[in-house]
Amino acid sequence: MGSTGSVISIAENDLMMEKPQLFIVKIGGAVIDDEAALQQFTQGFATIPAAKILVHGGGRMATTVAEGMGIQQQLVGGRRITDAETLKVVTMVYAGWINKQVVALLQAKGCHAVGLSGADGNVILANKRQADGINYGFAGDVLAVNVQLLTQLIDQNATPVLCPITHDGAGQLLNTNADTIASEVAKTLAKNYRVRLLYCFEQNGVLSNRHNPDSVIREITPQAFVALKAGGVVSDGMLPKLENAFAAVDSGVERVVIGAAQNLAAMVNGNSGTAIING
Amino acid sequence: MGSTGSVISIAENDLMMEKPQLFIVKIGGAVIDDEAALQQFTQGFATIPAAKILVHGGGRMATTVAEGMGIQQQLVGGRRITDAETLKVVTMVYAGWINKQVVALLQAKGCHAVGLSGADGNVILANKRQADGINYGFAGDVLAVNVQLLTQLIDQNATPVLCPITHDGAGQLLNTNADTIASEVAKTLAKNYRVRLLYCFEQNGVLSNRHNPDSVIREITPQAFVALKAGGVVSDGMLPKLENAFAAVDSGVERVVIGAAQNLAAMVNGNSGTAIING
Repeated sequence: MGSTGSVISIAENDLMMEKPQLFIVKIGGAVIDDEAALQQFTQGFATIPAAKILVHGGGRMATTVAEGMGIQQQLVGGRRITDAETLKVVTMVYAGWINKQVVALLQAKGCHAVGLSGADGNVILANKRQADGINYGFAGDVLAVNVQLLTQLIDQNATPVLCPITHDGAGQLLNTNADTIASEVAKTLAKNYRVRLLYCFEQNGVLSNRHNPDSVIREITPQAFVALKAGGVVSDGMLPKLENAFAAVDSGVERVVIGAAQNLAAMVNGNSGTAIING
Repeated sequence: MGSTGSVISIAENDLMMEKPQLFIVKIGGAVIDDEAALQQFTQGFATIPAAKILVHGGGRMATTVAEGMGIQQQLVGGRRITDAETLKVVTMVYAGWINKQVVALLQAKGCHAVGLSGADGNVILANKRQADGINYGFAGDVLAVNVQLLTQLIDQNATPVLCPITHDGAGQLLNTNADTIASEVAKTLAKNYRVRLLYCFEQNGVLSNRHNPDSVIREITPQAFVALKAGGVVSDGMLPKLENAFAAVDSGVERVVIGAAQNLAAMVNGNSGTAIING
């Protein structure tokens, strides 16, 4: 859908006016590892006055548990090599401890949370990443998102809480990047909802000066992104995040916002973080 | 409901004729720890031609993981003392690895499985067991089963797969006995379904001669139970299992069958195991 051009985009924008709003929020390890931050975040998330989905990671805790069990962790280009023992650890940590802890906290705050891995109800089908020189082990790339089940849950006022474990439909669990799950779910549900995708990370947004945490760029259009790249303002780890965000808005996601978990309410209202918008 | 007497029981039996059938199957560690047995069991379970719910335990694997992490396990009267670190382990093992592995296997076999802890959708609310001389830690006793959510899932042709982790509604996860979860869910859903509760364990059923694995007693009525206890045929660990089973049939569960996981199909058809029936 990214190549359909501006005429189709305008038609989609017209249709979007009739769709219900849906917030998809992704949180990472920094929030999950900090009990006070997690309490504050879940309180803020529970009170978002619209349909919502939470996607969480948890790599730091998985590394700690793996080390505690004496299982060596290997990372290549920032990606975890998922051997059989590591798959067991990430499934235990992501689908078990983190997912259920977050669900219990949300339930306590009046949010009707239902935790799911990709295997549950076949919510996220993936295929095992093919070795292209590097064997990533049991790593999965998203093939399909089960719109029907997610829509049914949302219609029943439930809030899906997705962990980054998927399956291949043939009985094999797979470890999948949480950022990717958030964007794939957002893109797929954009057909039925006006989706806002909020990526929570350590900073207040994309910074124009990396030494000044308050130098948040409010909005980035595709044109501005070209200039930011050319000027070297955006580089390294921020590049794939932004490319991912633009792919989402190209696929019909209304808006992607990158910001800090502690500013969630302001991000929801459009008053914090960096908004990635389609022109 | 156990004290409502025979007049009400007859009325309930009449109503039951119009209710749909529901199988609730509980498996324990012996099946879960053996990959071939788990493949065979999930194949058999997936093909039960009726609505169904699976409840699993996993205590042996939790003990192995806890030991691997250097967390000492303490059992009092067969019950695990669940301190904070042990709660983390059992949540990881039950809600994470075992639950998602079973769900992925069932999905591969065409069964639309959805794995749930008690916190998910508030399916099973519990309260922390009060210390009566023994502090069990984060152990939960079942307070309420969410009939609406389980019924919605079953109506959508989904198969709930329940792990023995519950929550207190105030953000605290709790470790709960899987046998108890199976019987509490069975009792609660007996209002809406003709429930058959199948307990899978290591033996072919209740044995009249414990040295002969083929001496399975086909049926036990309350009257026969009294005689079996008096004769010393049934004793020790089998007593609470049977008392639990009679409590379930007293609460409207159509039939409880105790047998071996490898005989699941025959148990479903009433041709294997020991049936606990109400007169």
